[in-house]
Amino acid sequence: MSDAYLLLEEQFRQLARLDHALTFLQWDHMVMMPPGGSEPRAQAIAELTALRHGLLISAKTADLLHGAADRVTTGGQLRSLQEMEREYRRAVCLPLELVKAQSLAGSKCEHGWRSQRQENDWSGFMTNFTEVVELAREEAQIRRDVTPGRFPTAYDAMLDLYCTGDSNSFIGDVFVTLKNVLPGLVQEVVDKQKGELVPDLRGQYPLDQQRLLNLELMQCLEFNFNEGRLDVSSHPFSTGCRGDQRITTRFRQTDFLDALLATAHETGHAAYESGLPITWDGLPAGSARNMCIHESQSLLFEKQLVLSRPFLSFFSSKIHSLLPATAPFDGAQLWAAATRVQPSYIRVEADEVTYPLHIILRYEIESSLINNTMRVTDIPLLWDEKMQEYFGLSTAGNYRDGCLQDMHWTDGSFGYFPSYTIGALNAAQLFAAIGRTYPDWQKQLAGGEVHFIRHFLEQAIWSKGSTMDSQDIMHLATGESTNPDYFLRHIRQRYLHENY
Amino acid sequence: MSDAYLLLEEQFRQLARLDHALTFLQWDHMVMMPPGGSEPRAQAIAELTALRHGLLISAKTADLLHGAADRVTTGGQLRSLQEMEREYRRAVCLPLELVKAQSLAGSKCEHGWRSQRQENDWSGFMTNFTEVVELAREEAQIRRDVTPGRFPTAYDAMLDLYCTGDSNSFIGDVFVTLKNVLPGLVQEVVDKQKGELVPDLRGQYPLDQQRLLNLELMQCLEFNFNEGRLDVSSHPFSTGCRGDQRITTRFRQTDFLDALLATAHETGHAAYESGLPITWDGLPAGSARNMCIHESQSLLFEKQLVLSRPFLSFFSSKIHSLLPATAPFDGAQLWAAATRVQPSYIRVEADEVTYPLHIILRYEIESSLINNTMRVTDIPLLWDEKMQEYFGLSTAGNYRDGCLQDMHWTDGSFGYFPSYTIGALNAAQLFAAIGRTYPDWQKQLAGGEVHFIRHFLEQAIWSKGSTMDSQDIMHLATGESTNPDYFLRHIRQRYLHENY
Repeated sequence: MSDAYLLLEEQFRQLARLDHALTFLQWDHMVMMPPGGSEPRAQAIAELTALRHGLLISAKTADLLHGAADRVTTGGQLRSLQEMEREYRRAVCLPLELVKAQSLAGSKCEHGWRSQRQENDWSGFMTNFTEVVELAREEAQIRRDVTPGRFPTAYDAMLDLYCTGDSNSFIGDVFVTLKNVLPGLVQEVVDKQKGELVPDLRGQYPLDQQRLLNLELMQCLEFNFNEGRLDVSSHPFSTGCRGDQRITTRFRQTDFLDALLATAHETGHAAYESGLPITWDGLPAGSARNMCIHESQSLLFEKQLVLSRPFLSFFSSKIHSLLPATAPFDGAQLWAAATRVQPSYIRVEADEVTYPLHIILRYEIESSLINNTMRVTDIPLLWDEKMQEYFGLSTAGNYRDGCLQDMHWTDGSFGYFPSYTIGALNAAQLFAAIGRTYPDWQKQLAGGEVHFIRHFLEQAIWSKGSTMDSQDIMHLATGESTNPDYFLRHIRQRYLHENY
Repeated sequence: MSDAYLLLEEQFRQLARLDHALTFLQWDHMVMMPPGGSEPRAQAIAELTALRHGLLISAKTADLLHGAADRVTTGGQLRSLQEMEREYRRAVCLPLELVKAQSLAGSKCEHGWRSQRQENDWSGFMTNFTEVVELAREEAQIRRDVTPGRFPTAYDAMLDLYCTGDSNSFIGDVFVTLKNVLPGLVQEVVDKQKGELVPDLRGQYPLDQQRLLNLELMQCLEFNFNEGRLDVSSHPFSTGCRGDQRITTRFRQTDFLDALLATAHETGHAAYESGLPITWDGLPAGSARNMCIHESQSLLFEKQLVLSRPFLSFFSSKIHSLLPATAPFDGAQLWAAATRVQPSYIRVEADEVTYPLHIILRYEIESSLINNTMRVTDIPLLWDEKMQEYFGLSTAGNYRDGCLQDMHWTDGSFGYFPSYTIGALNAAQLFAAIGRTYPDWQKQLAGGEVHFIRHFLEQAIWSKGSTMDSQDIMHLATGESTNPDYFLRHIRQRYLHENY
């Protein structure tokens, strides 16, 4: 047992205790805090963030990392040390002035965006956004330079923050495959669905009944209410810590499916977090691998599990009993209504078939932007061209439903978008592996039995934390690295052939 | 403007930002957290507490205090500096080993108490409690020695933590007055009430309706819901920060008055906090003066305001409309039911007439205990003697309803109890001053108008923060320092003469 390594663990566990405070202050901010609390909360969060950053990049951390480097005694410790080094390196490489400038520019851009989107004001937005992009280019260049030879382009270095370990060339190849196939596939599905009779589920669904229904769904998905809770926020999210997973959803009076699928999605995120390896608790090696894996867990719960025909049929009796207005529609009809496909402008409202095209569009633009091969001013034109190419829709002059629709870029989170789609591919691939392991999966889901899925994921994904690279995790779990074929097969099976 | 002083302000504002984090993590712990969150939460709170303590007693703080000492340029700054020095002195004087030993012994004693009280197990409790007392004696002695000549006894130094500025000899004199008068007064009131017809309000009151009623009460008391919220916890409390006051209450199905008065009480605490001087925000001078003043605000809202006959009559229409089962009883009958007086064993259930005797009993015992003039083993006997003397009730052998009933002593909070009764006296005295300033106060309350009370308190109490000593605040507000006559007059008027 290496003392140097154990001291390092204690240093990172101290960071984790500060993260705990930040996590729940931010949860409270989104879910509970009255408007008057904004200013002192922002100050407290800034103080803790600065304290945490200071500790992470301190000489003490550097010394401990250096001291432990040749003294770790197990493979696990070596891996743990590597993940600590990654976190340290990512934090220490940026000059404090850049971080501060980004924080200011990001806040300003995000704040302006809230009204500029409403007002379709691209030129107002561009004024703020140009600075965000320039600072992000600077950040990306620094991140690229700090590990020479590792990232072929500056954008690769940004992508690695969210898709850690999945390279840009790999993701780019996958996206080319999807881009070639999906537009035709979407058309096939739309044509097929044209002939189908589908109930209109819009209605008046009391929020307290919807809340009970969502709790019931979480119960079915084996969410542990002794170790978590469900609340409401304007955008659903999940956060928390071991033993205390907080998820949120949002309720719409007229549409019960929206909340239900959001709850399923966030329950998947929470399940992953709750199953991370306790051995490395509070350490980088014990954290979620990357957003591509995280999103695969939430999407698997939402799309492969809850939106499957057998599970939704099983769950329809609970929907009927809590929302009597749905009684006229059986499970098959509810499922048909929940799986409509339609090209549309807005990413967050897109179905699972068209969704990847929204992501690919953003990926293509943001990578050019960060690699300085296009100008901010050209975004709307390119957006419109790609919307026409992928969806047959035009956003010319319609910035609100075009390039102004998302918040991600306003604070410089370039490289995040791809994880949504890599996550969707991973979900389909993992679910195919589950199907091979449990050939009676449809029967089990039709009986409301989901434990076999949790068990598989806990073994294959959750318990790995960050002790392996993401493609190694995928390989061990499914026999191969991320392969878009499974997703495309899932789409064809669900929407064109077997209706599962 | 002194730079040295401004640096000191920044140092204390940094402490305040850590306090903010601790405040809301503790609120979440009491109100929201699922059981599984206990351990990581305890660790995060311990980490932040240690960080805060380390910053407070750091050489930097000492240097800044020293550097600013001769350079403050205004009376306000001088006062602010004095309050900073007080906080620093209080924290720096205790050896870290003592603080840790107290924390361990306190946790153990409190944890054991939860079952020992249920099981009437005095001897089991005494085993743990003896160590708590010994450590508290040590603490008290150190606190006394660190400011030579200031505290005549060790207990005085503990009392000063909660009743800051109100001396033990002063409080002792006041308690002698009360002790001479109250037992007879209680008897008079009990005799008078014997002949009265009072409705039995026990019933079935739906919790969601009770919740609406409590929100309605807070609205009437001008609680600002943009800057705070109401929740539920097992023991009502209030906490928060400027712009975000969090209060809690608890609902009992059979008794709506309990929650209502708890909500009134906590709304008073929140009102004080919301009116603290913004000039000294985040600094010791901008904090609540002491618990005697804090409790005076909560008790004034609860006893003088909401429990007044005119206000309760006004509010009875809202009670009737949200809890239709109360409709048979008019405001006067509700008031009569809410103001019953009866000697009893349990402090937290006591009426306002008998309550001070519960406090005096505890004060007499804890002061002897800390000053080492009695032994822990003698507590039950003394408790029984005093219960017989003050209430005519015996607790011989009944520890559960005797000396084991309160949690305060288990973690060594000796000196806290007196603030409840000094607070009650201050409340009566302040309300008498309000009555002199607004002779039509009964008419205003009968119309549901409470703004004149908030206005008076904001000017006289809230806006003073800790920029004056508590007796100076009382003097400026009422023309004299704390005087028990007003409380006794309030009791006589309400319960024997005018029934207001």
